Formats: sequence, C-alpha cells, structure tokens
Amino acid sequence: MNKIHFDKDHAAWRVKLYHIIYGADTRLGKLFDVVLLILIVLSIILVMLESVSSYNIKFHDQFYIAEWIITIFFSIEYILRIITINKPKNYIFSFYGIVDLLSTIPSYIIFFVGGSNMFLAVRALRLLRVFRILKVTRYIGESQKLISALKNSRAKISIFLFAVLIICIITGTLMYLVEGPENGFTNIPLSIYWCIVTLTTVGFGDIHPLTPLGRFIASFIMIVGYGVIAVPTGIVGAEISKDMSKGDAIKPFTCVNCGEKEHKISSEFCHNCGKKLNEN
Amino acid sequence: MNKIHFDKDHAAWRVKLYHIIYGADTRLGKLFDVVLLILIVLSIILVMLESVSSYNIKFHDQFYIAEWIITIFFSIEYILRIITINKPKNYIFSFYGIVDLLSTIPSYIIFFVGGSNMFLAVRALRLLRVFRILKVTRYIGESQKLISALKNSRAKISIFLFAVLIICIITGTLMYLVEGPENGFTNIPLSIYWCIVTLTTVGFGDIHPLTPLGRFIASFIMIVGYGVIAVPTGIVGAEISKDMSKGDAIKPFTCVNCGEKEHKISSEFCHNCGKKLNEN
Amino acid sequence: MNKIHFDKDHAAWRVKLYHIIYGADTRLGKLFDVVLLILIVLSIILVMLESVSSYNIKFHDQFYIAEWIITIFFSIEYILRIITINKPKNYIFSFYGIVDLLSTIPSYIIFFVGGSNMFLAVRALRLLRVFRILKVTRYIGESQKLISALKNSRAKISIFLFAVLIICIITGTLMYLVEGPENGFTNIPLSIYWCIVTLTTVGFGDIHPLTPLGRFIASFIMIVGYGVIAVPTGIVGAEISKDMSKGDAIKPFTCVNCGEKEHKISSEFCHNCGKKLNEN
Amino acid sequence: MNKIHFDKDHAAWRVKLYHIIYGADTRLGKLFDVVLLILIVLSIILVMLESVSSYNIKFHDQFYIAEWIITIFFSIEYILRIITINKPKNYIFSFYGIVDLLSTIPSYIIFFVGGSNMFLAVRALRLLRVFRILKVTRYIGESQKLISALKNSRAKISIFLFAVLIICIITGTLMYLVEGPENGFTNIPLSIYWCIVTLTTVGFGDIHPLTPLGRFIASFIMIVGYGVIAVPTGIVGAEISKDMSKGDAIKPFTCVNCGEKEHKISSEFCHNCGKKLNEN
Repeated sequence: MNKIHFDKDHAAWRVKLYHIIYGADTRLGKLFDVVLLILIVLSIILVMLESVSSYNIKFHDQFYIAEWIITIFFSIEYILRIITINKPKNYIFSFYGIVDLLSTIPSYIIFFVGGSNMFLAVRALRLLRVFRILKVTRYIGESQKLISALKNSRAKISIFLFAVLIICIITGTLMYLVEGPENGFTNIPLSIYWCIVTLTTVGFGDIHPLTPLGRFIASFIMIVGYGVIAVPTGIVGAEISKDMSKGDAIKPFTCVNCGEKEHKISSEFCHNCGKKLNEN
Repeated sequence: MNKIHFDKDHAAWRVKLYHIIYGADTRLGKLFDVVLLILIVLSIILVMLESVSSYNIKFHDQFYIAEWIITIFFSIEYILRIITINKPKNYIFSFYGIVDLLSTIPSYIIFFVGGSNMFLAVRALRLLRVFRILKVTRYIGESQKLISALKNSRAKISIFLFAVLIICIITGTLMYLVEGPENGFTNIPLSIYWCIVTLTTVGFGDIHPLTPLGRFIASFIMIVGYGVIAVPTGIVGAEISKDMSKGDAIKPFTCVNCGEKEHKISSEFCHNCGKKLNEN
Repeated sequence: MNKIHFDKDHAAWRVKLYHIIYGADTRLGKLFDVVLLILIVLSIILVMLESVSSYNIKFHDQFYIAEWIITIFFSIEYILRIITINKPKNYIFSFYGIVDLLSTIPSYIIFFVGGSNMFLAVRALRLLRVFRILKVTRYIGESQKLISALKNSRAKISIFLFAVLIICIITGTLMYLVEGPENGFTNIPLSIYWCIVTLTTVGFGDIHPLTPLGRFIASFIMIVGYGVIAVPTGIVGAEISKDMSKGDAIKPFTCVNCGEKEHKISSEFCHNCGKKLNEN
Repeated sequence: MNKIHFDKDHAAWRVKLYHIIYGADTRLGKLFDVVLLILIVLSIILVMLESVSSYNIKFHDQFYIAEWIITIFFSIEYILRIITINKPKNYIFSFYGIVDLLSTIPSYIIFFVGGSNMFLAVRALRLLRVFRILKVTRYIGESQKLISALKNSRAKISIFLFAVLIICIITGTLMYLVEGPENGFTNIPLSIYWCIVTLTTVGFGDIHPLTPLGRFIASFIMIVGYGVIAVPTGIVGAEISKDMSKGDAIKPFTCVNCGEKEHKISSEFCHNCGKKLNEN
C-alpha cells in the first residue's frame, strides 16, 4: 500500500513502470511480456493438471503453492496496471481488464470460502490473457484480415447454420419416428443431437440407426451434408479471396486531379482521368 | 363464426387486419409477427419436450393445455389469414398456406381419433413457419444469393453425388465380399450404408472392417473421399465467388446512349460506346 | 441363330435395329434406352436384395427367375449390339462392350459350375452400364467440366495424397511405439490404418489412443489434418473457378483484322486492335 | 577398405560412380535410382511386417536375413556417396545425408546391443528417402507450388489453429465441469482431447456427452466447427487461386521502353507506357 503512494509521488517512476508493463519496445518491457506469457501458460497447465485426480493427490501441496505464487503475481500486476495508467477506468472496464480481474479473484474466493469446482472454469479464462501477448506480434494484421472476412460473411453463415439447424430438427424428428426409443433414439432432442453429429460428419457412434429405413434416411442426410459442407467454405473462401485480391491489386491513393481513391498497384497514371499519379 | 361475418361486412376492419397479419410495416403488424414467432418456437419446443418420456409423465396435463392454446391460436390465425386476403385461394394453396394448415390439423385429429405418434412429425412442420418471419429480415437477400449459387451448381453437384453413390455401391459390394457377414457386413445394402458413412467421413464405427484386406480397401476409400470432398466445395465456392465479384464490380446502370446495362463500379465512361455516364 | 442370319441378309432391318439400340433420337430408340435403364437398375437392386439372407430364403425362387429374365435380355441385347454394328470389334473391345459382357457371363457360370459368391461382385459391374444412359443426358457437359478440372489438378492431388500417406506411415509407426499392442495398436499396418481413419476425419473409434502421450499425438494429427484438408479443396476449387471464369467471360471469336481469338462476352470492339467485331 | 583407396586413386572411376549415384540422366544412373527406390519401399514394408506378431514368429529368420541385406546395401550406398562426392561434409550434414545415416545405424545397434523396440521408429525414417527419388519426377514443380501456397498462408493458418486450440481449451474445461468424471470426462486434458476430436469432426466416440446440457454444448461446438472449417480451406484456396491466375495471366517480359515487368498474356502494348511489346 505504501508502494502505491510512493509511486504516485514519483511520476517518473510511474511512467517508467507504465512503459515496462504496457509497452513492448524497451528491453525491460519485452522481458516483462515474456515472463507474463510464461506465467499465463504455466497457470493454465496448472489448472489442467489439478483436474487429473492422480496428480492432484500426489502433488496437492505443490499445486497449492504454485497456485498462490501465480495468483499473487497476477494480483500485483493488476494493481500496477491500475496505478500506472492515467485513466484507470479505461483499463478496468476494458476486455483485458475484466479478464485480468477474473483470473485472480477465483483463487481468493476458493481460499476464503472453500474450494468450489465452478471456479475452475473461471480460472480457464486466464487463457484469454494470451491474446495480450499476441498484440505485439506480426500475426495481428493477419488475424484482423481473417476476422474481417468472417464478419463480412456473418450474415451468409448465420442463414446457412440456421438452415442446417432446421434440417436437423426436421430429420431428427423423422429419425425419432422411424427408429424409436428401442433403437437408442430415446426422444426428439436426442434425435436432433444425433442429426447434428451426423450432418457435421463428426459421427460419434454412441447412437446410430439400426432399421433399414433409418439407415436409408441417415445415408441421405450424410450425402446431403457432404454436398452442403461446401457452402460455408465457399462463402468464407470467396470473402478471403476478395480481400486478398483487394489487398494485392489496389493501392489506397487519392488522385489529386479527380479524387479517385483506388488504383492498381502497378498504375502510373490515374485510370479515371489520365492524370499522372505522384506518390507525394 | 359471427366474427367472420362481422369482418366481411366491414371492409375497413378487414383491411386493417390484413395489414396487421400480412404486413410488417406498422407497429401492430410487427407485434403480431413477434408474437407469432414466439408461439411457433414455443410450439416446436413443446413437441420436443413431449417426446422426452420423463417430462411427458410429469407435465402431461400442462403439455396438453399448452398444445391446445397454441392450436387454437394457429387456427384463428389461419381463419383470419383466409378472410382478410382478397383471393383466399392464393394463400390456401401457397407453400405457407399448406404449412399453416398442416400445423393445426394434427392436433384436432389426435383429439378426435386418439393419439397417433405419426402426427408428431407433421407437427414438426410448424418449424417451416419460421421462414415466414425471416421474410422481413435483412438476411433474405443473403439467402437468395446462397440459393441462387446452389441452383447454378445443381447440375454439377447432382452428377457429383451420383458418382459418389456409384462408388459407394461398387465398393460396398466389394467390402461385403471381402469382410462378409461374420465381420458385420451382413448384406450389400448394409455394406453400401457403411461405405456412405465412411466416404462422407462421418464414421459411426458401428460397423468397421476387421480383415487386413478390408482395412486396406477402407483406407483407399477414405483417402479418395478426402481428395474428392474438394469437388462440391470447389463448385459452390466458385459459384459464390462469381456471384460476389459480379455483385461488387458491376453497377446496374443503363447507358442513355447505347443501352449497355452493366458497368464497372468505377467506370465514368460507358465501356461500350464511350459516352459519359450520368447517374441521373 | 436363324434370326442372326435373317438380319444379316436384310440390311435395312439391321440399320433400323442399329438406330433403335445405339441411337436415342427416334421414339423407339428412346423407349429402348428407358427399358434398358429400368432393367439395369432392377438387376442391381436384385443383386443387393439377394445378399440379404432373410429375403434370399423367402424369395429364392422369384430371385432365380428374375435373374434369368434379366440375363437373357442382356444376352440378347449384347448379341444384337454385335450384329447390328458395322465393326463389331470396336464395340466388343470398348469399355462398354467389356462391361456388357461381364454383366451376363457370371449368371451362366453360376448356372453351369454352381453358385460362387465371387460372381456377385462382377454382377455389380452392371452398374457401370448406367453411364451408358447418362451419355444422352444434359449432365454430360457438366461432368466433362468436372472431369477436366480433376484431370488438371491430378498432379497436385497425387503429390498431396502421397504426402498424406507418408505422414500416416510415420505417425502410424509413432503411435504403435507409444500405444503398443496392449492398447489396440496391434501392429504398424493397423496403426497406419488408424492414422488414415483419423487424418481423414472419419474416426470409426474401433481403435483409439488410451495413453496421455498417444492422445497428445492424436490431437496434433487431427489439428494438422484439419488445416491440411484445405489443400485439395483449394486446388480443385481454383481449377473449377478458372474453368468457370474462362467459360463465362471469354467468347471464342476471331477478329478479322488482327486474328485475336479471345474476347470478353460484352466486347463490341477488339481489345487488341480496336476493329469492330462482327458476328459474321 | 581397399576399394575406397582404389577409387580415390582412379578419379575417372570415381566421377563415373558419382554420375551413377547422384545423377539420373544416364542409363545406369536411372537403373541405380530405380533399384534404390525398390529397396527403400521393401525396407519399409519389412519394418511393417515385422511388427505383425504372427508374421514375425513365422518368418523371423527370413526377416532377419532381408534386414541385413538391406542394411548392408544402404551402408555401401552411404559410403559410396561419401567417397564419390567432392565435399563429403556437404552430403553428410545435409537433410538426406542424415536420413541415410539414420536408416542404417539402428540395425547395427540392434545387432550389437540387442533388439530395442525404439529403433523401429528410426528405421521408419527410411521412408523419407523416397523423397530423393521424387526429386527427378515432374511432380516437383507442382509440389513446390503447393509448398509455396502453404508457406504464404502459414501466418493465417497458424493464427487460425491457435484460435481453434483456445476454443478447445475453453470448451474442454466447460465440458469437464458439465459432464464430470462420472460420464467419462475424467480430467481437463482429456476433455480438451475430446473437444479437438469433435471440432475437427473426427468423432471417435470413445468419450461422448451423456447429459442433456453436455449434448447441447457439443451440438454448439459441432455447428461452430462446421462453419469454421471453411476458414483454412478459404485461405489456402485463395492462395492457390492467386498463384494459378498469376501463372496464367501474366507473362514475365520486360518492356524495353519503361522497364515494366509484368504484362497480361494477351497484351500487345505495354499497359504502362503504351509502347509496342516485342518478343525479341
């Protein structure tokens, strides 16, 4: 607590810390990011290993100590992030701020209230912290392209998935009537579940048709599914293809003569008015 | 019944009702659509829950009452749709008219004749009613693009699926001869069913080859299937890609000089006759 | 035998029969094709039903009679095809000639030698006869486009499938060493079979890893397979896309001025020399 | 040993051998390649068959002899490769040099130390030798195109697979909490494994949800996976498509007037400066 006051009094120290925590362009800033990344990955592995009962019995104490070390580090990091930033609210209510908070609180609650299994899931939210590190990598440009391609085809994919769902509900009901509870199709929701498993070509095999008619309908569903899988692929593919050809062939440069904004990369003259294009 | 006569006598009332039921541009019309949508979804959930035997025993009476409330609402809606429209035949024999009728009749027959399981399936047809609501949404443009892409590639996909079917029949017979009834390939139709399950990469695992030769043939089928799945994807993808580039790059604008109708978005001059294109 | 001599003496009768059997432009020729198609489909259904033991016991005599009717019809058809054509060798050694012969001989051998199960498979070759009928349909243009797209990407798909096979052999051996015979991976060929089943996303589930390390490797294979499935799709898709844009956008019309052979569908003037394009 | 000295003294003999072993343009060079290919394939089949316990018991002695013949041939080949090349280090530390060494050493170690199962995997590395033969085939151009398409989309596919992995970790943890150890989801790593099996549409069926909520989440994962499978396909497809259209439509020809290097195949005039393009 003293430390916080100390930091606030010495703005230079606070600015320096700010650059280490939020920046990645100094040597210390990079080191901080790498240490944080390793701790995040370790904390996730820890959650996973704790769930394996044989390990949990053997290494219970070690897990407990490691859990607390990580929690305390994350808590300190969270407090430092708040005190070094100028407008703490911007951080606290941002996506990463909430994720950072959620990745520390469960451990405290388990400590005070007693271990509830439910907090395990919230602890898994720590993984979202990995995205923080990704921010600095060169992949972000790529991921934004992918996300924009997915966003552009959102409407088409929604209507497609909705159509798939309706097919599953109708054929699921049909399969329930044909196969019936005696062949494992106990009720309609279960039949619809089977239908989704089949149409998406997952095919667990826990439930499968046993009557000739049921198998005939299943064959029909599978062949349709095989032909239909092309649709989302085609949509996203076309979207990405368009993005690519746009990114490659077009340079965003405004012609001073006519105001035309998109030109081929190789163009020397404006394709609209014939004026020579000057980079400056 | 009185009400119907009453409506017919008062055309203004009928017109108003027509706009509420068939239209979606007034506040009441939108409310009607939303209430209808909720009831449709509820009626489908009801059919699903009724099929779960544990729920059906517990909540049998509640299900019975809910069933009748929905049936009566749908009946009233159906009658109102007929009496408010000018040419009732257009509605009655339309796709939606038949679906609307089929979603009310089964309940009455079950009531009078006694519960037959078969009507459950017809009740599932109610789901098709959901499409009615979709009509007003912005997704319709997208779905028409998808449907047109699928229509354009219908011939190619048909021949592809026919080829897949022939491969399945031939390899299915082969697997029957190689594996035989003692390994679960009881007869040729079942072997063909297994082949469809395998080629479409569903793979339930209820039947699977046990002899080395059978496994070798299965491996061959799977690798072929893996290479072949590309075909429908490629077809629809190319079709959607074509549609997209058409939609993007072409503006439907008629040149006043030569009547040319399709121009590139960026064109200032007609590519056909050289006349300047004016938006008005 | 008399009939054959009779036909040979009367060339007109032979020519007429030739047009009925080989042609599809006369009313009788079309009828012949339709009857043949129905018999082919019936003969295939017959082979399938015979393999279902419960049906075979019940309807053994009926199957026997139907088998002989179809065999005799196919034999007569085969003889007529030979005697009506000018160069019988062209037919006999063609793909369809061999298929036609193979679809009649097994029945005779079963009759004289006694029923061998092996002939069932050869009888399934009858299905290939279906292609004969397809010849006349409008789908052939489409199927040739598909076949040409597949042919063009043959080299790419071969090298891809070869790479998949090598991955399967290496990871199959790895899984054998990790899981071992005690977990169902009895030997390397079986492990490779499992690997193919997994990488192609079929996943029967008859064999599956049980050790943590085996499951980790399996996860790796599956994620790789998921990313790799894109390759054949991309290849064929690009090939079809290219074919489509070629077919749509280009008209094969030679400019009389400069000899340029490919023009955009919408072009009025040659894009090469500016000369007006005349359709005649 | 004598032979090596002999070779070194007679440079002509060494050059001749070099062309036979490393080259493929002479008759003997081709023969050497074919014999080597056959031996490589045989050695791999041998490793596979040895793993089948029933064969290993029956043909143990034959396998032992065949193993030694192949090992000795590979050893001689390895020594010859070293002594005929001018800079042996270039070969020894190249990819193929290491593979060649690894494919002979295990047999010797097994002979002297005693049979360890682990060497079986290293022996499988022999398969990598097949690539050596591929070098000379016409498919290499195609495979380089594929590899370059995969390389170009590496960043996009990495981020995609990373996103898939994160989805699997989060939903895997969720499924562990929902289904729990009593339904087969024993621990989080196993649940994540199940999630990967499901999302990649493999679906072994060894573990599958049993509670209604678990099945609902599984349905959601499967439908998402079905929509998401489009992404890698779209990426690679677009990449291949771009490569193809580049290869087709562009001729690499430098304009003598302005130095522009890429022209459309059909261009007669430079699109950059209007100068006529002369092939010479």
